Amino acid sequence: MSDQIAAKLKEMGITLPQAAAPAANYVPYVISGGLLYISGQLPMEGGKVAVTGHLGKNVDVAAGQRAAELCAINILAQASAALGGDLGRIKRVIKLNGFVASAPEFVEQHLVINGASNLIANVLGDAGKHARAAVGMAALPFNAAVEIDAILEIA
Amino acid sequence: MSDQIAAKLKEMGITLPQAAAPAANYVPYVISGGLLYISGQLPMEGGKVAVTGHLGKNVDVAAGQRAAELCAINILAQASAALGGDLGRIKRVIKLNGFVASAPEFVEQHLVINGASNLIANVLGDAGKHARAAVGMAALPFNAAVEIDAILEIA
Amino acid sequence: MSDQIAAKLKEMGITLPQAAAPAANYVPYVISGGLLYISGQLPMEGGKVAVTGHLGKNVDVAAGQRAAELCAINILAQASAALGGDLGRIKRVIKLNGFVASAPEFVEQHLVINGASNLIANVLGDAGKHARAAVGMAALPFNAAVEIDAILEIA
Repeated sequence: MSDQIAAKLKEMGITLPQAAAPAANYVPYVISGGLLYISGQLPMEGGKVAVTGHLGKNVDVAAGQRAAELCAINILAQASAALGGDLGRIKRVIKLNGFVASAPEFVEQHLVINGASNLIANVLGDAGKHARAAVGMAALPFNAAVEIDAILEIA
Repeated sequence: MSDQIAAKLKEMGITLPQAAAPAANYVPYVISGGLLYISGQLPMEGGKVAVTGHLGKNVDVAAGQRAAELCAINILAQASAALGGDLGRIKRVIKLNGFVASAPEFVEQHLVINGASNLIANVLGDAGKHARAAVGMAALPFNAAVEIDAILEIA
Repeated sequence: MSDQIAAKLKEMGITLPQAAAPAANYVPYVISGGLLYISGQLPMEGGKVAVTGHLGKNVDVAAGQRAAELCAINILAQASAALGGDLGRIKRVIKLNGFVASAPEFVEQHLVINGASNLIANVLGDAGKHARAAVGMAALPFNAAVEIDAILEIA
């Protein structure tokens, strides 16, 4: 990891977890043609899903943003595993797809996913400015409140 | 913009709006390796979300199709901003992901997203023929009825 | 198709169907820059959607997995059509996006999409190991229980 990114993570009090192992016949990431595709990440913390439920029902926006931050931290952990620990090889985060478990009345998915967008931009600077979609889901695996996948351009 | 595309837009009575500014720490589009990734676009018209609610509840298929058309117009506006105003640089629309806010009983998401597919194909001709997914969401940001993102191949 | 893949399909009792024709102004796949983007595939069998409804309501996990397998078979059928019948040209399945029609209480979308992940990995071996997202939808076109799209790297 570049010293600058490592310092930023430390300053933000973030320790990247061990990248989660695949749970089935798929893999946490694939590299193809200079792009790194990262599987949908859940808000894992300490080996379990830390924020469960639906926004607009039993999860408020602040908790949803925390879930999105945890998804982003797990995306960075997968990127680190994919890049031999060197997050400085990230040229650009191209796209985040943010999936928010939502009651039908909840319409602030964009605010929830800002938790991930802000963290990624804070850690990576200009390389972290990404396109994204933020949408509301009926439900997510393991009752996670948020799931986020990513496409990154790498060196 | 190529004269042909400009003429087509005029013939269809479409004026591209100002591309919407990013609402947070993300950007409306990213260019990487000859591809243009456009963030999820809402059915904005005159600076506000023009079609709100859920298909199968308080939005009918015709209104949903109009929402999808507006999303497509905003995709073209973002592409124009990304390409210095020259939509002739679009070699191919590769993929549209169409997200339709849906009551659980509504199962015609494909008809709704046809509003966008038809508009894009009509404006861009063969370059506008895209792969796509059309799926039903629990809810969308700002209570939008439809959100669509896109990947384009550019020159 | 490579002899090995053909033998594997035969061993698994899978006959690839005719690739489904586009239902509107979009196409079932687009090839760009060595990547094959395949439109969202439904669990079609014998020309109709074979598994309908919502997981957690009127579709159990086993039926959902069967739906995911059918989506995967239709993805392979589209890939075969795109690649002149030669699935040996698939260098890597990069990403599957698995959309599962879900009641809000259903949180095992990952188990459902394993139906597709296992089939693709079994047929294609290491080339079939993909990144993925598995998420729960309010509803899907034609009341399909599952929809899956794909990005493949091709030779």
